[in-house]
Parts: sequence; C-alpha cells; structure tokens
Amino acid sequence: MAYINEHYLKLKAGYLFPEIGRRVKAYAAAHPAAKIVRMGIGDVTEPLAPAVIAAMHKAVDEMARRETFQGYGPEQGYDFLREAIAKNDFQSRGCAIAADEIFISDGSKCDTGNILDIFGADNVIAITDPVYPVYVDTNVMAGHTGPANEKGEFAGLVYLPVTAENDFTPELPKQKVDIIYLCYPNNPTGTVASKDMLAKWVGYAKANQAVIFYDAAYEAYISEADIPHSIYEIPGAREVAIEFRSFSKTAGFTGARCAFTVVPKTLTGKTHVAQADSLCHVVIHKLWTRRHTTKFNGVSYITQRGAEAVYSPEGRQQVRQTIAHYMSNARLIRETLAQIGLQAYGGVNAPYVWVKTPVQRGQTANFQTAGNWCQSPQGRTTSWDFFDKLLSTAHVVVTPGSGFGASGEGYFRLSAFNSRENVVEAMSRLRGMGF
Amino acid sequence: MAYINEHYLKLKAGYLFPEIGRRVKAYAAAHPAAKIVRMGIGDVTEPLAPAVIAAMHKAVDEMARRETFQGYGPEQGYDFLREAIAKNDFQSRGCAIAADEIFISDGSKCDTGNILDIFGADNVIAITDPVYPVYVDTNVMAGHTGPANEKGEFAGLVYLPVTAENDFTPELPKQKVDIIYLCYPNNPTGTVASKDMLAKWVGYAKANQAVIFYDAAYEAYISEADIPHSIYEIPGAREVAIEFRSFSKTAGFTGARCAFTVVPKTLTGKTHVAQADSLCHVVIHKLWTRRHTTKFNGVSYITQRGAEAVYSPEGRQQVRQTIAHYMSNARLIRETLAQIGLQAYGGVNAPYVWVKTPVQRGQTANFQTAGNWCQSPQGRTTSWDFFDKLLSTAHVVVTPGSGFGASGEGYFRLSAFNSRENVVEAMSRLRGMGF
Repeated sequence: MAYINEHYLKLKAGYLFPEIGRRVKAYAAAHPAAKIVRMGIGDVTEPLAPAVIAAMHKAVDEMARRETFQGYGPEQGYDFLREAIAKNDFQSRGCAIAADEIFISDGSKCDTGNILDIFGADNVIAITDPVYPVYVDTNVMAGHTGPANEKGEFAGLVYLPVTAENDFTPELPKQKVDIIYLCYPNNPTGTVASKDMLAKWVGYAKANQAVIFYDAAYEAYISEADIPHSIYEIPGAREVAIEFRSFSKTAGFTGARCAFTVVPKTLTGKTHVAQADSLCHVVIHKLWTRRHTTKFNGVSYITQRGAEAVYSPEGRQQVRQTIAHYMSNARLIRETLAQIGLQAYGGVNAPYVWVKTPVQRGQTANFQTAGNWCQSPQGRTTSWDFFDKLLSTAHVVVTPGSGFGASGEGYFRLSAFNSRENVVEAMSRLRGMGF
Repeated sequence: MAYINEHYLKLKAGYLFPEIGRRVKAYAAAHPAAKIVRMGIGDVTEPLAPAVIAAMHKAVDEMARRETFQGYGPEQGYDFLREAIAKNDFQSRGCAIAADEIFISDGSKCDTGNILDIFGADNVIAITDPVYPVYVDTNVMAGHTGPANEKGEFAGLVYLPVTAENDFTPELPKQKVDIIYLCYPNNPTGTVASKDMLAKWVGYAKANQAVIFYDAAYEAYISEADIPHSIYEIPGAREVAIEFRSFSKTAGFTGARCAFTVVPKTLTGKTHVAQADSLCHVVIHKLWTRRHTTKFNGVSYITQRGAEAVYSPEGRQQVRQTIAHYMSNARLIRETLAQIGLQAYGGVNAPYVWVKTPVQRGQTANFQTAGNWCQSPQGRTTSWDFFDKLLSTAHVVVTPGSGFGASGEGYFRLSAFNSRENVVEAMSRLRGMGF
C-alpha cells in the first residue's frame, strides 16, 4: 500500500449531487408509484440544435474515411473552434481575447478543478458562500485547507457570504487573498454581477496581486442589456482574470462535453524562486499550456465540430430558442413562488431560482403576523429538511441550499432546466402544499 | 499575482511531441518541397470501424430528440460500456474485474496523470527508463521530485533502466519503492512482459505494500499466445494494481477520446492519520470515485456508444483487421531494418519498433570490423542528431529515444501507425541512406 492523499479524508461524505441522487433513489425504491419531478440538478433536457446535429453527423462521416479521418487533435482545441469563440464570444463584445488564449476542454467542472494544478499551495483562497461545491472540494483535495467545522466550513478558506441580507453581493475580503472565485450569472443564487461590481473586484485583484477565477458558464442566460457577459469587458481584467465558459448550458452539451478556459497572455504569477528576472513573474498562459498538453489530450473532434456549429447563423438562432424556453420556465417558477408566498431571487438572467425555505409549522403564527416572514432565519425549515419534505410530499426534487455552503442554509435552488410540462406539474404540486 | 506551482519550473523545455512538432514545422517551412513522412508520434491513421460509425450516428440521432436526448451521464461511464468492458476485456480472460471497478475516461494520458491526485506526496516513485514522458512530467508537476540533472533525470525518482543490455526487463529496485509504473506492451520499446515477470512485480508490490500503475494501452496488439493482456491475469494483482486501458490504439479513438481505468475494490492505501481502524487502510476505489465524480463529468455519450460497438461481433472483427494492418506495417519495418543493418526490437506484440542509432560516419571502420557495431554505445549517433539527420536527409520523422529518458539515448522509435504507402516510402528512403 502506497500512502494516500490524506487531504481526501477531510472531505464531507459526498459531493452534493450524488447525495441528492442517493436520497431520491432510496425514496423512489420505497415508493415506486410516486411520479418524481426533478427540479434539482442543473441538467438540460432539450435536444441538441439541428445545426449541431448536422455538424456532428458530418464529423462522424469524416471519421469513417481515411482521407478525412481525425486522430489526435491539438490539445488546446482546433483553430476553427478557438477562432469562432474568440470572434463571437469576446471580440464582438469588445474584449481583446485572441484565439490562442482559449483552451478547449471537456468541461468547466474539470477546468475549475484542474486550474489549481498550476498555482502554489501558499495562496489564500476566497470563495463566495453559497458556492458551486467543486471550488471548495478541489481545494480541499489539493491540500489548501484544514479540516471542516460543524457547519462544513474548511479552515484556511476565506468565505464571502452572499445572502438576501447583502443583496447577494460579496464584500471585498478584509484580509488579503490571492485567488478569488467569482461565478456570474451565479450558480446557485441566479443573481448577476454589474460592471461596477466586477470593476471593484478587478481593482482589488490588481491592488493585491490576486487572480480572479471567473466562471461564466451561464452567460448565455443574461437577458438584461447592461450586465457583463465576460469579465474581460472590465478594463484591466486581462491582467488579473481567468475565465471559464461551457457549451453545457449554452447549447445543451452536458452529454456531449465541451467547454473552454480563457487564459490571457498578460496574466502573470509570482514565484518564490529567485532566478533570472524573467522568471520572477511567470506567464500563466505558459504554465496552463504545459499542464493542458501534458495531462489532457483534447476534446472529441465530433464534439468540437458540433460546438463550432453553435456559432453558425442557424445554430445561434436555434440555441437562443432553447434558452428562451428555459427562461420562460424560470419566469413561471418565479411567478408561482411569488403567488404562494415564497421569497425567490434570480431567474431573470440565469436559469436558477434561489428560494428561502418557509418557516416551520410551529412558527406559522410568526409568519402570519410578521408579514414578511422570510426575513427571519429563525424558525425557517432547514434546507435538507425542506428537501426531504418536498420529496416525500410533492415528489419534487430541489437542491438544498446548505449543500452549497453554510450561508445557503435556509434556501433551496430550483432549476429551470426542464420540460414545460414538468415545471407546470411541479409548480401545481407546490401550490397544493399550502405553505 | 498569486503564487504559481513552483514545481512547473523544474520541467524541461517541452513535452517530447510538441518539441518534435516544432522541429518538423521549422524544417517544413524552410523546405516546402520536402515530402515529409511521419513515423514518429503514435497516432492512428485508419478510419473508425463501420460498426463504430453506425453506433455514433445512431447516438447523434438520439441527441436530436427530447425522448432520447442524453444530458449528464454517470461520471464513471454508462453501465452499457462498463459491462461490455468487464465481460469482454477481463472476465473472458479469467480476470475477476466487475463493471463497477471500471471508470470510463477521456484518455489514458489524463488518467495516468490524474491518478496521482489520490496518492500522497511521500511515496517513492519508480519508473522504467526509457518511459512514456507523461509519467515523469506529472510527478514533477505534483512536486514528487527534485530538479533534473544534466541527463534529464529528476532527483527523487527511482529509474529502472530497460535497454538491450538487460533484454528490456527492469530489475526489481534495490531501495523500497511505493508506486511503480509498468507499461506493457511497452511504449516506447515495443517489448512485452511475460507472466513470470509480472508475477515477480506483483510479489514485490505485495511484499513492499506498493501499488503498480499498469498501463496496458497497447494490449490489443499482442499476437503471441502466452503474453498477459492484463495484470489481473496474475494472481494477487487485484490487491496491488491499477490498470489503464484505452480505445485510442485499440480502435482508433485518438480523435474521439475514450479510455478507462480499472481500480479493484480490494486495493487499499495507507494513511498516516491515526483514526478509527477502518481508516488506516483506505479503499482506493472510494478515493478515485470521489476524484472522478468531483473533477470530471463523464465522456461524450456519442463516444461511449461508439466504444460499446467495438465489442459487437462486427466491431471486433473490423478492429482486428485494422490492427492486422498496423502490425503488417511493423513487420515491414522490422524486416527493412534487419536488411540495412540497424538493430531493432519490439514490433511483434506492439505497434512500435525500437531501434539503435547507427555509429557516426567517423566510426564506420569500427562498425565494419566489429561485425555487430550496434553493441557499442560509444560512437553511436545521439537520438536527436539522428532525428535531425533523418528529417533533413530522408524527410522521415521518428521519435528520438532520449526523449523517453536517459537510457533511451542512442535509440529511436518507429511507429507502425501509418498507411502502407507511407511505410513503404519511408523504408525505401532509409535504404537509400546507406548506413
């Protein structure tokens, strides 16, 4: 037996979604007649766009003939896709991002975990709370934290609460941090960052020589005109930020696997090693290139051709239609929740609605007299209790807010990724619960 | 600027194949008329099997309809593929490997690098020399080594030479090691391990509580009956070995991306942490499950359906035909090299031929009198000099042996992955060089 990575022993029992899966499976096994509607995990339900399907069929045919067969591609992705991304996602919005600053990958989950490989163990890491659990777990695995406390907070991480009380806007950290994870449109809260807010963070990063990991996996869901789609819309961001993007939610690629990471060549990192001057500031692009070419072998050619088709005129139109479908689900969810008296956030520029749990039965008087009972965390049902209650009463699966962090306690997340029929059914059942 | 991972600064200039790519590109740019034949990188050239193509088209069509659309799949892979692998690759050969011990991934390069995540930094690592460079580089990146010496050997790694002098059979290490990388059929030497040899290593691992990382990416090329295809053919291997397999070379998936790692549930690791007894020996399968589900999101559904088709009766027959094509290339290479007096190894159970470089021009008298001049390393052309000479004289690209490690100096690798036409042309040019 070799020695294991001891840091894994600090991890909590399971990644959030497998834990949800286990509870749903157990309930379904015990209640085979229950027709369960899943509003939890953010997985797309609509088929790939016809333009994508056509491109994939064509690519499969190319793989069938020696003359057009594709073996190993460039690890960083084919130029046809990198160029389409640079032009359509960045240059068209005034962001000076070049094709060779884009690294195609098989998923943003992988990228946001793997990016830690090229940074040192001595950085202070800040995350918002609640947060996408992968940011936390991968830092734990990499040994960047101590053990967790009873609330699930890991020693050594700097948590930046985002709750209704601060309008879901993280405050700048009081202590100096070196790496900051920001995700906008936000998973799980569905809220967005304004240009002013991002400019504040870019300013912080510049002043503190910090790096921002900017996860923009949901940017395609932004509907309001003044919300930035990329952190590179903020002047100076090329010197401080890495951006993660994905085709998963933009174009329904959760089962086809394609994403990308933007590493500007102007981003540098520090080294403790006193060497030639040129090494004191190391170009992060070079490190990520080395990591990506050594530990990754590129994305399926068929998938990359499908992703390229997302940028064709037909592809863009078809993808927009699918996004409009999900966002009309989000509107239906928001409207229903308002009608039944549950306080909800997000769902306007993001496919997620973040909801306060109701007060417990014994506390309903408090609710009725207080008028706006959701303002009081006291007496609110815990996230997992409400998860279990919704599952057993309405057979609706949500994502418990506490699974995203201590500050998510007392909230749950509803996903708009579903058929209209399922959303209508789930909302009808929620109405029937009589909060 | 956050701090970088300082260990990256220890890495040599570039991963071997990008360096070859740079030299070939530079030569081609300066000599646009040169018709370059690439016999270097081990990338397949033949199209995907018709059964695979049909399965992929069907899967693409499924992605086009809501009723059959596939979103996130299980991170470990779909049961249909895991079960086909367990049955056909293992159980049929008497290896007791279950479907849930198989983790589908997008590549063995990724897996052999990522597997280090779950092991501690305090293990002593042994690799053969020459070796697939990814094993070394990923250990350097993970901080498991000191700096490299002038030969490119990293402090802290235990190198096990495999050369003509020891019949390409690594000796058991003199010092205790915790992790051993073995690759058979071997890349780069094209040699194989007998059952007796593997049994010796399994015995060593048991006696020393070590783990074997067994890379069997080329097992489909084994032609002789008594050569083990899997380390699990050796009694006791389930307690000490992780095996890596790939569809890249087996079925031409280098551009489609599918591989798998076998982690038996009976494999455990040690922890320094004094906790409950159950934690003193940690089940590696649990750690890898946690890693795989947290930092990876599964392989493209389309790719997995294609991989499944490799196990259909038609798929098996078609894949065997393609392998026979490559292996007849290998035979042609071996025969040509023998005729022109270059000493070659491998190429019988593997698609690689490992060749001693000739003596330098000034040393040819020595060659003529010595009869078997290749036995003498003195005066032999260096690997990179021979690479450059072959490129500039014959316009043939090979892989320099020293790129695989210090003990690979004075060798080069020829890949059998090519069209017959290219192999015939390359061999004709080698004959014309007049060694």
